[in-house]
Amino acid sequence: MNQRAVTACVLVIGNEILSGRTQDTNLNHIAVTLGGWGIQVREARVIPDVEEVIVAAVNEARARFDYLFTTGGIGPTHDDITTDCIAAAFGVELVESKEIAAIIRQRSAPPPVMEARMRMARIPHGATLIDNPTGGPQGFRIENVFVMAGIPTVMRAMLSSLEGKLKSGPVVRSRSVTAYLGESQIAAALGTIQLDHPEIDLGSYPFFKNDRYGTSLVMRGIDESALDTMLEEVKAAIVAAGEVPEDIKAG
Amino acid sequence: MNQRAVTACVLVIGNEILSGRTQDTNLNHIAVTLGGWGIQVREARVIPDVEEVIVAAVNEARARFDYLFTTGGIGPTHDDITTDCIAAAFGVELVESKEIAAIIRQRSAPPPVMEARMRMARIPHGATLIDNPTGGPQGFRIENVFVMAGIPTVMRAMLSSLEGKLKSGPVVRSRSVTAYLGESQIAAALGTIQLDHPEIDLGSYPFFKNDRYGTSLVMRGIDESALDTMLEEVKAAIVAAGEVPEDIKAG
Repeated sequence: MNQRAVTACVLVIGNEILSGRTQDTNLNHIAVTLGGWGIQVREARVIPDVEEVIVAAVNEARARFDYLFTTGGIGPTHDDITTDCIAAAFGVELVESKEIAAIIRQRSAPPPVMEARMRMARIPHGATLIDNPTGGPQGFRIENVFVMAGIPTVMRAMLSSLEGKLKSGPVVRSRSVTAYLGESQIAAALGTIQLDHPEIDLGSYPFFKNDRYGTSLVMRGIDESALDTMLEEVKAAIVAAGEVPEDIKAG
Repeated sequence: MNQRAVTACVLVIGNEILSGRTQDTNLNHIAVTLGGWGIQVREARVIPDVEEVIVAAVNEARARFDYLFTTGGIGPTHDDITTDCIAAAFGVELVESKEIAAIIRQRSAPPPVMEARMRMARIPHGATLIDNPTGGPQGFRIENVFVMAGIPTVMRAMLSSLEGKLKSGPVVRSRSVTAYLGESQIAAALGTIQLDHPEIDLGSYPFFKNDRYGTSLVMRGIDESALDTMLEEVKAAIVAAGEVPEDIKAG
């Protein structure tokens, strides 16, 4: 097994997310899915439909991470500029994908409608296709950049088609436990436990539920036995603080 | 009225968002709230609890945008490193805020618990406080950077306390209309309408609902009369495509 971490960045492209009109859910789905495949999402950016912003973000992210996944802006209307921007970022021309064009022509339409749809057949020179199990036009991949639709159902279908086709690193596993106590009550113990296990990431997430303050302790890392050891130490810290460890989960 | 746009960036700090454990909702709330105040969120980044990543992102964003709002990482545990990173980004020392310390001391606790809580009294030298209407420790502002909690209820309370205290530009208004037709069916007309009104942003967002494909057309801009004109043109394009404009909204 290759122990090097494989990293990814997600670029959510769309004015509708930044205006607050739409609540993004794609990042969460991509993070969970890629995580299960041994690819760690290390950063995400939400950017507007502005060419120079998209081009700069794509070029920065594709250099910094193993993979870049974009969502949004590949439809048939004037505001769908992602494909053009990806081509510009790579300095290549757009070409017509015969395969996408064939999919588009399966549904007949008057010439101006067909012309609009054919915008979706354009891909950067050198790109290969990402299957679209919903039956619509495909997405595409160029080098380490994966360009997917913004509509969640279509994005999820496209992403699912990539399973088993990407390089992967070790899968990050987790343990979690909840306690109805304030973070401060176990902060010192948690700090010590984290120092003792630098290879496991120990996160503390306070919440307020059923009129009570509580804290979720989440451990993430590669080494299952180190995770189990840390979990026991965290549970002991909760007991030492006078509370009961609850809702213990492994993932 | 100052017609220059006032811009903002949102930095969501937290491993739990990037692992997919938590679905972020703070960006959406901040975007809607600031939008109503005449501040446009132009970019958002989700970054991990890693010092060099946070420092670099803060320094880039505070230079590019009028305002930067961060969420997450200001609690009492070892993984709460945002305050330290903001101080590092500005090259200043951390100092104890007497005001926050007084809030913290209102609730008595054993010495080690109090010591952990007092981590939250540390602010960068030169920072001023952001009220916390939930009664807990405050957030802080340094220059154009606003540092808020990650827990949505606390973040929302802190943000609300800033109303009327920030510079603002013109408020971006919107019009929207829905039609049960594919984007391609009106893509050509939309392209022409957008070209005719470059000052209004016309977005086309397809959806699939009740077993039918539909498209939401969203117009955003400063000029109310230009918005109204564009809305009429878009409605006419929908009618010309043989459909009925529905769910017309102004915002």
